[in-house]
Amino acid sequence: MKITFLPQNITWEAEPGETILQAAVKAGVSIDGNCAGMGTCGKCRVKVLEGDVSEIRDHHHKLSEADIEAGYRLACCQPVTENMVVEVAEAETTASRKKKLIRLPEDFVPFSAVEKQCIRVSESSLADQRSDEERILEIFGWKGAAFSYDALAKLPQVLKDNPERLVTLTHREGQIIDVEAGDTEKANYGLAVDIGTTTAVVMLWNCSDGSMVDVSAVTNPQGAYGADVISRITFAGEAEGNLKILQQAIIDCINRAIAGFEEEDGINSSNIYQLTVVGNTTMSHVFLGIDPAQLAYAPFAPVFTRGVHTEAGKLGLRSFAEAAVYVASNIAGHVGSDITAGVITTDLMDRDKGHLFIDIGTNGEIVLTGNGRAVACSTAAGPAFEGSSISQGMRAARGAIEKVDIGDDGVKISVIGGCQPVGICGSGIIDAVGELIRTGIVDKSGRLLSREKLEQKGISPAVVRHVRANGKANDFVLYFSEDGKQDVVITQKDVREVQLAKAAISAGITIMMEEIGVTLDSLEKVSIAGAFGSYIRNASAIQIGLLPAVSEDKILSLGNAAGIGASMILLSQRCRQEAEEAATEIEHIELAGRASFQDQYMMAMMF
Amino acid sequence: MKITFLPQNITWEAEPGETILQAAVKAGVSIDGNCAGMGTCGKCRVKVLEGDVSEIRDHHHKLSEADIEAGYRLACCQPVTENMVVEVAEAETTASRKKKLIRLPEDFVPFSAVEKQCIRVSESSLADQRSDEERILEIFGWKGAAFSYDALAKLPQVLKDNPERLVTLTHREGQIIDVEAGDTEKANYGLAVDIGTTTAVVMLWNCSDGSMVDVSAVTNPQGAYGADVISRITFAGEAEGNLKILQQAIIDCINRAIAGFEEEDGINSSNIYQLTVVGNTTMSHVFLGIDPAQLAYAPFAPVFTRGVHTEAGKLGLRSFAEAAVYVASNIAGHVGSDITAGVITTDLMDRDKGHLFIDIGTNGEIVLTGNGRAVACSTAAGPAFEGSSISQGMRAARGAIEKVDIGDDGVKISVIGGCQPVGICGSGIIDAVGELIRTGIVDKSGRLLSREKLEQKGISPAVVRHVRANGKANDFVLYFSEDGKQDVVITQKDVREVQLAKAAISAGITIMMEEIGVTLDSLEKVSIAGAFGSYIRNASAIQIGLLPAVSEDKILSLGNAAGIGASMILLSQRCRQEAEEAATEIEHIELAGRASFQDQYMMAMMF
Repeated sequence: MKITFLPQNITWEAEPGETILQAAVKAGVSIDGNCAGMGTCGKCRVKVLEGDVSEIRDHHHKLSEADIEAGYRLACCQPVTENMVVEVAEAETTASRKKKLIRLPEDFVPFSAVEKQCIRVSESSLADQRSDEERILEIFGWKGAAFSYDALAKLPQVLKDNPERLVTLTHREGQIIDVEAGDTEKANYGLAVDIGTTTAVVMLWNCSDGSMVDVSAVTNPQGAYGADVISRITFAGEAEGNLKILQQAIIDCINRAIAGFEEEDGINSSNIYQLTVVGNTTMSHVFLGIDPAQLAYAPFAPVFTRGVHTEAGKLGLRSFAEAAVYVASNIAGHVGSDITAGVITTDLMDRDKGHLFIDIGTNGEIVLTGNGRAVACSTAAGPAFEGSSISQGMRAARGAIEKVDIGDDGVKISVIGGCQPVGICGSGIIDAVGELIRTGIVDKSGRLLSREKLEQKGISPAVVRHVRANGKANDFVLYFSEDGKQDVVITQKDVREVQLAKAAISAGITIMMEEIGVTLDSLEKVSIAGAFGSYIRNASAIQIGLLPAVSEDKILSLGNAAGIGASMILLSQRCRQEAEEAATEIEHIELAGRASFQDQYMMAMMF
Repeated sequence: MKITFLPQNITWEAEPGETILQAAVKAGVSIDGNCAGMGTCGKCRVKVLEGDVSEIRDHHHKLSEADIEAGYRLACCQPVTENMVVEVAEAETTASRKKKLIRLPEDFVPFSAVEKQCIRVSESSLADQRSDEERILEIFGWKGAAFSYDALAKLPQVLKDNPERLVTLTHREGQIIDVEAGDTEKANYGLAVDIGTTTAVVMLWNCSDGSMVDVSAVTNPQGAYGADVISRITFAGEAEGNLKILQQAIIDCINRAIAGFEEEDGINSSNIYQLTVVGNTTMSHVFLGIDPAQLAYAPFAPVFTRGVHTEAGKLGLRSFAEAAVYVASNIAGHVGSDITAGVITTDLMDRDKGHLFIDIGTNGEIVLTGNGRAVACSTAAGPAFEGSSISQGMRAARGAIEKVDIGDDGVKISVIGGCQPVGICGSGIIDAVGELIRTGIVDKSGRLLSREKLEQKGISPAVVRHVRANGKANDFVLYFSEDGKQDVVITQKDVREVQLAKAAISAGITIMMEEIGVTLDSLEKVSIAGAFGSYIRNASAIQIGLLPAVSEDKILSLGNAAGIGASMILLSQRCRQEAEEAATEIEHIELAGRASFQDQYMMAMMF
């Protein structure tokens, strides 16, 4: 059956039994969703324009009668039963916010492993019967250099098509890996890829001068098979071939980004000679098609942590077939190479001063240095700070509330895109909960107080009107829509989610500080990785207890540290070595192995 | 259309327009022939048992009326037009003579690049969360060792299937390239392959102890597309895809040999971790799928001469997919890696004494050392010494006359297999012509004298009766069959072929001796490569002027020097290095570039 996705206007041949979501993943169409096709989050709704979907399936209870009447269905629950046309509600929007974040440190010196050189090859004669190989290696002047088999096999045709015998050689570590007719010295590209559980960022660099060409941030299509790493590992283990499906999904995703670069930037993908890939340890395993099963249960031992070298052709990547793929070193089962990459963008590995590095996503990964040691842990923060598991949570896209101010005159919100709000993103949630605590609307135990209680405490009526009873608990309305049907609210449950998430991270930080003897006073620097760090208000993060209570000038937002680090590893062999050393030297602390963790966790639960 | 070959009982789906010979090549059925499907040698005759071949095609004039009546056809001329069953007259027979020839020098010490080691992998725990990779590398104890991507990808499954966690690691140059469950340390195989224009010899070695497991000598199926290298290069250039056809033919041929080893020796081809390939420069190019066009015309500059490293999987070889394939260094466009390999089996590269190395095949390759120099050349000897271009020439197979003695009491012949003779092989031709010259039946100018002349010279009647007039010239009958229809004779034209061939080689030797100042007196050693060398009578070879007139004790037969050398390169990294050095150090002399060559050639024409 054919299914056409609008507005992308992509048509795909779906297989029997496939859901709209599964077809969308294969077709490369991005549809939101957090529950990995469980039908529980209700975020993958699409409007069916053509095709009979009168037989309503399970899980569509997430949709209202009116929605169902209007043709809306959950893409994860609705099988493709005949030729269909569906409208995908939400387009990809994360790219816009990410695009400007890839900037390398000012003192960074690129030193590419791959270089290109254009030479003219002399002709043979009876007096000089040397092989083409020999005369090229002589001009090239590299003692001990040799042709790769593939470059050698290309050579006769390149010389034949090219009466001037002007060729460009691509070399890497003493080996000529490619040969092209004419001068293509400047066409020397590399990709840095940061595979996040939710979003993959693909960065295109010109390795001849270390300049950035383009960047593409796209939804990780594996999301259709599980919102978080554990559910994806579970999916991978459920049936033969599932791991391959996950691997292919991310490979296809990267290939689409590359195809986009070809179209938009006029590059030729066969001139991409190297790729550096970072991601959490599960993403690293899945990208390489290596079974991540062990990462789902204690003791969480990965199959590998060291950097892995392979060839693009083996993975089916759209690039020079023998392009060197380097998957950077992971630190532990749940502290991945994205953290390794992030670490090398900082002075963390000096290890002299107290320095906390924190990357908040579905998991919160923490690295702490000081007193000559470096330790790392991961905490199961849950997806609250990514806007997921929050009733009206969403990604940092158009329509998301990203900032909240509560004053005596009421509630002010800031919405991405300046439009009517439709949900709330991670930074907005932290800000909202921070403000609710600061103003006493949420008490230290995390309870969202009732109107009566707040009136008693003397909170202004302009604020109190935002509190609305919801059964035995209370909601806080951030935005009142005209008809009341599209309000954006923070529920008591949302506050609890934030409370659990911040407690996990906070307890991790406390245990690590104790481990290496860093105190709040000796903590000189807090570096926050991730686009997330650029948007949260530090005061709010400290208010809710997510960050330690240091003075705000010690807090530094790194931007997309994983992406920057991956690019540095791509462009500099020295950075690659630094990353490998960092991954080896950072000691992993397994919180699950610490008796004190549960105590710390319970204590950190209070705001 | 289906075609079944008997007695092999192999059925093949032929494509429209294909000849029986082309189908046979693809099906892996060996059919003799020297003219590459030109229909001129008449050696590829097969008997059609089923299938209508009443419409007789061109070239079948090589067959008698009776033969055609009986269903014989030339495989190279007869298209497969419907389902057919054909009987292939001659089975492969070269193997029997080659099988015993692969013996390495007694002082040879194998030192394989690939080693296997069985270890038990410890379990992870919360106290020891190291990756599987890390704990293996630690037990393994190789600082700097790393897993290849493919071995890493296999690891989880190998450990999963293997509760004892006993694994065998295969390592090569600091890299673990394979991992298997259980103890497979002894299953460490390597192949040495000598690709001759006519015959490919595939030698299976156990690299764990340097012992030979098996050897297979098979007809090079490229013969269907050209008897010699020039005709194959021509074929390769005639159409897109032809080079691939030639390459695939030899790859398939090697794969069939490997399949045979699996069946007969109980090995698993996935335990073949390394292959060393030698052959003339054209065979080296074609094996790698690298365009050999330049080798067909002056200045005969090859695309490459240095050793080429690649992976078996890239060539489609039936072995461990990442098995290291090494195509040994060639010396020049027409002095290939088979000569390089042969040279390292001798003390030639000492270069102190006058030492002539000679390999006689379709081309005669010559290496000469002395006075501190090493030079090489190739001479276009033609296929006479391989039994081809001789009217009743054949390969050294059952029924071939391999020795001839002429005495006063008549002619004695020695036949391979002790049966009725059907032809004459290379060593037989040299012996026959040598005896004809010694006895004066052929004069110094190469003329086969008439009965009258011989009677005048007092040659015994028992010998004279073997001379038979044939038009204006004379034949010499080596064997009289009962009905006279299956006599084996040497014609005047055959003597001329031998004369031309020996002149080319002899002139080459003379020019090389002059070049480096080696005289007949200072020539201390003559080493003859090839099975051929084991069977020729030195006296006869000297008699016809093929070898310089040194005392016979200086002449040494090396046996299959190329095969022995290839095996040494496979089994010893030191030998590989010696071969690379030899190929670089031997100076190539282009006879076509020497003004003196034509003079020398004309002078050498006399017996």
